[in-house]
Amino acid sequence: MQLFIGNQNYSTWSLRAWLIFAQYKIEADITKLQLFSDDFYNTLQTVTPTAKVPTLVDGDIHVWDSLAILEYVNETYLNGQAWPAIAKDKAHARAIAAEMHSGFFDLRNELPMNCRAKRKLDLSKGALRDLARIDELWSQQVEQYPDGWLFGEWSIADAMYAPVALRVETYGIKLSEKATVYQQKVLNSSAIKQWLAEASLETDIVKEDEAGSPA
Amino acid sequence: MQLFIGNQNYSTWSLRAWLIFAQYKIEADITKLQLFSDDFYNTLQTVTPTAKVPTLVDGDIHVWDSLAILEYVNETYLNGQAWPAIAKDKAHARAIAAEMHSGFFDLRNELPMNCRAKRKLDLSKGALRDLARIDELWSQQVEQYPDGWLFGEWSIADAMYAPVALRVETYGIKLSEKATVYQQKVLNSSAIKQWLAEASLETDIVKEDEAGSPA
Repeated sequence: MQLFIGNQNYSTWSLRAWLIFAQYKIEADITKLQLFSDDFYNTLQTVTPTAKVPTLVDGDIHVWDSLAILEYVNETYLNGQAWPAIAKDKAHARAIAAEMHSGFFDLRNELPMNCRAKRKLDLSKGALRDLARIDELWSQQVEQYPDGWLFGEWSIADAMYAPVALRVETYGIKLSEKATVYQQKVLNSSAIKQWLAEASLETDIVKEDEAGSPA
Repeated sequence: MQLFIGNQNYSTWSLRAWLIFAQYKIEADITKLQLFSDDFYNTLQTVTPTAKVPTLVDGDIHVWDSLAILEYVNETYLNGQAWPAIAKDKAHARAIAAEMHSGFFDLRNELPMNCRAKRKLDLSKGALRDLARIDELWSQQVEQYPDGWLFGEWSIADAMYAPVALRVETYGIKLSEKATVYQQKVLNSSAIKQWLAEASLETDIVKEDEAGSPA
């Protein structure tokens, strides 16, 4: 099984897919491609119609989207345990995972993930609205599962929101106390520590993902 | 079970969620809200944190995203039959469903769904690229399943691409012969005919979704 990812410093969608392998110690060859390089496009066009990361190749099965990879790995290798066991929680987890998958554009555009940097910038109303929604969402889950992941055990919903926890760090965003509990949970997890350690070894700069001024 | 949708003439995401109920004759109360009206926001804010359609309420379970609704209904009421049975097809179907869920922005922005209209407009390079990708995707599936849905039997992937088949009609888009076979399959399905009949009874105009000039 081979997982193609982009620069770990920048690629949020790669992180989301990579996390399920790290959390459950599922073996896969990780192939890291430098975002937007010739090698990136040349390699990806042989395995995906969209030339995007992440892409998973498992035998003759090719999956080229983060959420689809998470669903595929969960069903194929985890017997479904990466979604909450309680039906209500599972439906809720799917709704918030989908909310991230198709939304939060202002946050995503204005605050690119940039793991190694500390930056400051002024946020638009849209980005503030996105952050307020995420703060609300995390806080509600912390009320329900005080020391845990969003739904107690780690789930695909946590994979989807992990890059936001890293952005909060990069851009020095102030969250509510409850949302901070969750953000710290993410930062202190061994999978995220491993990702950050690997990202810190990278030296490539992707200009479009360098936002703000030094903090 | 209650499904909240927007104007049938315009709301692509509503159509996607609605289709699984129509295809499998699953009973649900359909509540149609006029997009962006006071009633729309007032009603939705009592059942969803994002005030968007579609939203499904099933007892104490609330699901507020089209793809999450499709996954939920499939698991809860269809024993999983709304994804292809073959593992490779299922992974592929999930990848293209996710591709639509998080992408094709130029197509979505420039060519709003507008079921009752016939329009012409000039397309940007981005929209043409989106259409070329969809043409490729549909054609490949027609090669594999000549008279069927994308994966033979109707699946969630078909729900995700149905609004594109309607846009092709509205804006008089030329597709390849194979892609046209699929587009016609969608148009001739009884669920889509029902949707169009219901949409044709609407008189509300949503200005942002009126693009192009009369064809």
